[in-house]
Amino acid sequence: MTAQLPDNLDRNSCAQLDAQDPLAAFRDRFLDDGSTIYLDGNSMGRLPKAAMSRLQEMAEHEWGTILVRGWTESGWMESPLRVGDSVGRLIGASPGEVLVADTTSVGLFRLMASVLRARPQRRVIVTERSNFPTDLYIAGGVADMLGCEVRAVERAALRDALAGDTALLMLTEVDFRTGARHDMGALTEAAHAAGALVLWDLSHSAGAVEIQLNTHRVDLAVGCGYKYLNGGPGSPAYLYVATALQDELRNPIQGWLGHDNPFLFDAEYRRAPGIRGWMSGSPPVLAIGALEVGIDIQLEAGARRVGEKAALLTEVFMRLVHARLDALGFEVATPDAPERRGAQVSLRHPDGLALVRAAADRGVIGDFRPPDLCRFGLAPLYTRFVDLWDAVERIADVVESGMSGLPKYRADVAIP
Amino acid sequence: MTAQLPDNLDRNSCAQLDAQDPLAAFRDRFLDDGSTIYLDGNSMGRLPKAAMSRLQEMAEHEWGTILVRGWTESGWMESPLRVGDSVGRLIGASPGEVLVADTTSVGLFRLMASVLRARPQRRVIVTERSNFPTDLYIAGGVADMLGCEVRAVERAALRDALAGDTALLMLTEVDFRTGARHDMGALTEAAHAAGALVLWDLSHSAGAVEIQLNTHRVDLAVGCGYKYLNGGPGSPAYLYVATALQDELRNPIQGWLGHDNPFLFDAEYRRAPGIRGWMSGSPPVLAIGALEVGIDIQLEAGARRVGEKAALLTEVFMRLVHARLDALGFEVATPDAPERRGAQVSLRHPDGLALVRAAADRGVIGDFRPPDLCRFGLAPLYTRFVDLWDAVERIADVVESGMSGLPKYRADVAIP
Repeated sequence: MTAQLPDNLDRNSCAQLDAQDPLAAFRDRFLDDGSTIYLDGNSMGRLPKAAMSRLQEMAEHEWGTILVRGWTESGWMESPLRVGDSVGRLIGASPGEVLVADTTSVGLFRLMASVLRARPQRRVIVTERSNFPTDLYIAGGVADMLGCEVRAVERAALRDALAGDTALLMLTEVDFRTGARHDMGALTEAAHAAGALVLWDLSHSAGAVEIQLNTHRVDLAVGCGYKYLNGGPGSPAYLYVATALQDELRNPIQGWLGHDNPFLFDAEYRRAPGIRGWMSGSPPVLAIGALEVGIDIQLEAGARRVGEKAALLTEVFMRLVHARLDALGFEVATPDAPERRGAQVSLRHPDGLALVRAAADRGVIGDFRPPDLCRFGLAPLYTRFVDLWDAVERIADVVESGMSGLPKYRADVAIP
Repeated sequence: MTAQLPDNLDRNSCAQLDAQDPLAAFRDRFLDDGSTIYLDGNSMGRLPKAAMSRLQEMAEHEWGTILVRGWTESGWMESPLRVGDSVGRLIGASPGEVLVADTTSVGLFRLMASVLRARPQRRVIVTERSNFPTDLYIAGGVADMLGCEVRAVERAALRDALAGDTALLMLTEVDFRTGARHDMGALTEAAHAAGALVLWDLSHSAGAVEIQLNTHRVDLAVGCGYKYLNGGPGSPAYLYVATALQDELRNPIQGWLGHDNPFLFDAEYRRAPGIRGWMSGSPPVLAIGALEVGIDIQLEAGARRVGEKAALLTEVFMRLVHARLDALGFEVATPDAPERRGAQVSLRHPDGLALVRAAADRGVIGDFRPPDLCRFGLAPLYTRFVDLWDAVERIADVVESGMSGLPKYRADVAIP
C-alpha cells in the first residue's frame, strides 16, 4: 500500500492520491457544506444524502399512510434481521448471525450476562483496562449482578490473564483513544485455547477496517451504528452471535419479539430459534432505516477497499504529522504498522484540549480525550488526502499563532 | 360526561358531538389522506405533521451540518431527560423522574431486576396472567436469572396474591386485549400495604387517559412511545423511577451515560445521582425528536381533556355497538364504567379475524387479538364521533354481506 507514497508528501501529491482513489466518488454521497474538514467520523459519521429522503419516505409514506400495516407491508418487523444481515456481510458474518437492536451498552449486557450464565464454572471476564468505559462499566454491572469478576489488565498482559476460570475475553478491536488495533485472530485463538469465549466490540472498526468474524471463529460481537457506519446520532447498535451459540446462550432480556410466534400473545415464552430469539422489544424502525442507508453505502464501497484506504489515509496523515507537527510538541500515539491500527490517528499534546478547540475554530473538527489526546478519524468514504494536508497545516498554524488564553484540561471539569 | 348523550344516537348527534369537541382541532395536526377510519392508534399512532419537518430538520441541519457538536449544541445529550420531563408532566410525575430510553422490554428488565436485587428477602413478582406478553416474558427472564418467582394470577386474585414474600406488583394499567383499566391507586396502596413496590406499564394508557403517578405514590413505571403518544414505529420507551428510589435501586445495565462524568472516560463507574444514573447507552436522538413532537401535542391538548374525550368516545362507540352489532353476534369485552377502561373498545366475535380484515378492506382499521377479539382504539386526538358511526355501519355491513370465504383464526398460523 504505502510503497506508492513519494518521500516528500506535498499538497500536490495528496491531490494525486485523491485522483487515484477508487473510493473518491463516495464523498459525494454525504452532505457536506464545504465549511469544515470533518475528522470526527470515528465519533459520529456524516449524513448520507439518501438518509434524508429515506427518513422522509418512511415518515410520510410508511408511518403516515401505511400506518400500522407497515409492520408487515413495509418490512418493519423484519428490518432488524434484514439490516443485521447487511451488517453481517460487512463484518464477515453469515446470514442470520447479526441483529440490529438497542444500544451497544444493552448488547454488551445481554451477551456478557448470557455467557456467564452458560458457563457457571467459569467466573471471570478478562478485558483491557483501557477498554471503552461502557464496556468496562457494563461488565462490572453484570459481574456484580451474577457474582463474577472482571479482570481488567494492561494490553500486554491479556494473554497471561486468560485462565481456566475465564468465561469470556471481551475486547474492543480498535482502541478509542489511540486507534491501536488488536490482532483479532490471535487473541480469539488464545481465548479459545483457554476454554473461553470471545466478545469483540467493533464500534471503532466496522466501516473503517476489514473484519472477518467467521474466519477468526469469533463467538460474539457488538458494535455501534453512528460512527463509521454513518447511521446518525444515537443510531441503533448491532449484535453478532455465532450460529453455534445462538440457541445455547440465552438472551436474558426475553422480550416478546424473541418469541417463536409473538402474535399468538401466549403467556408462556417459547423462544424463537436462531438470531430471532435474540430480539427483545419493538425495533426502532425509523432509525434502522437510516442506518440501512449507511450500511448499504459501505457494502457498495466494499470492506476491503475501505480498509485499504484507511491504511493509506492514516499513513499519509502520520507522515504529514511527523514532517510538520513533531517539532511543535505533538507525539503520534497510533501504531506504525497499518494492520495494527484503525482509521483514526491520535496525537498527544500537553495542550490537547485547547488545540482541538482552536483547530475547530479553523474548520478542522477532531476531538479530545483526556488527558492529552487529540483524535482525528479519517473516515475512508468521505475524507480526501488533501483534507489531511490542509488539516495538518491548520493545526500547525494553531500552535504557531500561540496558545495563550486557551482552556487547559482539568479532570474535574466536565467535557464537552 | 355521558349525561349529554341523547338516547338515540344517530350520525347527526355524532356530528354534533364533534362540533362541541374542545379537542376537534387537534385532528388537523396529524397526516390523514382521508382514505381510512384509523382505529388502531392503540397499536401505532398516526404521524404528527410536525414530526416530518422535525425529522428533516434534525437530519439535514443537526446531523448533516452541526455534526458531532450536536451532542451539546443541539441538545442531543440532554434529550432523554428533556423529553422525559415532558412525558412526566403527562403522567403526573415530577421533573427528573422520567427518562426516555430503549424499549419497554429493556425498561421492564432494568426496573424489575433492580427491585429484586434491592429486596433480597422478597423473591416474588406478582402480576396478572393476562398481562401483555413482553411484561410476562421479561419477568420470567429476570426471575430465572436472579432465582426468583413470578406469581401470575387472575385479575380478581391480585390482592390475595400480595404477601410478605412479594417484592413487586407489576401490572399493565390498561389491558391490551379488553381495554379494562385497573384501579391504580387502590392496587398501589395494596402493594405498599404488603411491603411491596409497584411497577405500572402505561403503554396502553399514557396519551389516552389521565394518569397521576405522584398522587398515587407509584414507585416505578414504563411505557411505550408509539401508541397514543404518536412517536412513530418503534419509538423509544420511557421509564419512571420515583425520586425516593432513584439512588436506592440500581440500574443493572450501567452504561457510560449513567456515569457522573462520562466524558472523563474513567475506568471506574461512578454513578450519576438521580434519574441520570438510569441512563445507559447513547440516546436514539432522531427517534426522541420525533417522539417529542407527539408528546408536546399531548401536553397542549391536556391529559384531563384527552381522558374526558376518551371516556366519551368509548361510551358512544359502545352504545352504537349495542344498537347495531349486538344482534350480529358481537359482544363488548370492555368495561361499562368509564373510569375502568382506556381509550379502546374490544368486541368478541367468533369470526373476529375475518371481520377485522374485511373491515380493513372497507377502510376501517382495527386489529385482532387471538382468539376472538376485535380491537378498536379511539385515539382522542384524531378520532371523530362521526368516525365511530361510520365504522360501526361498515362493520355491520361486513357481517350482513356475508362472511363466507374469509379466513378463520388458527392458533398454529402466525399473525399477521
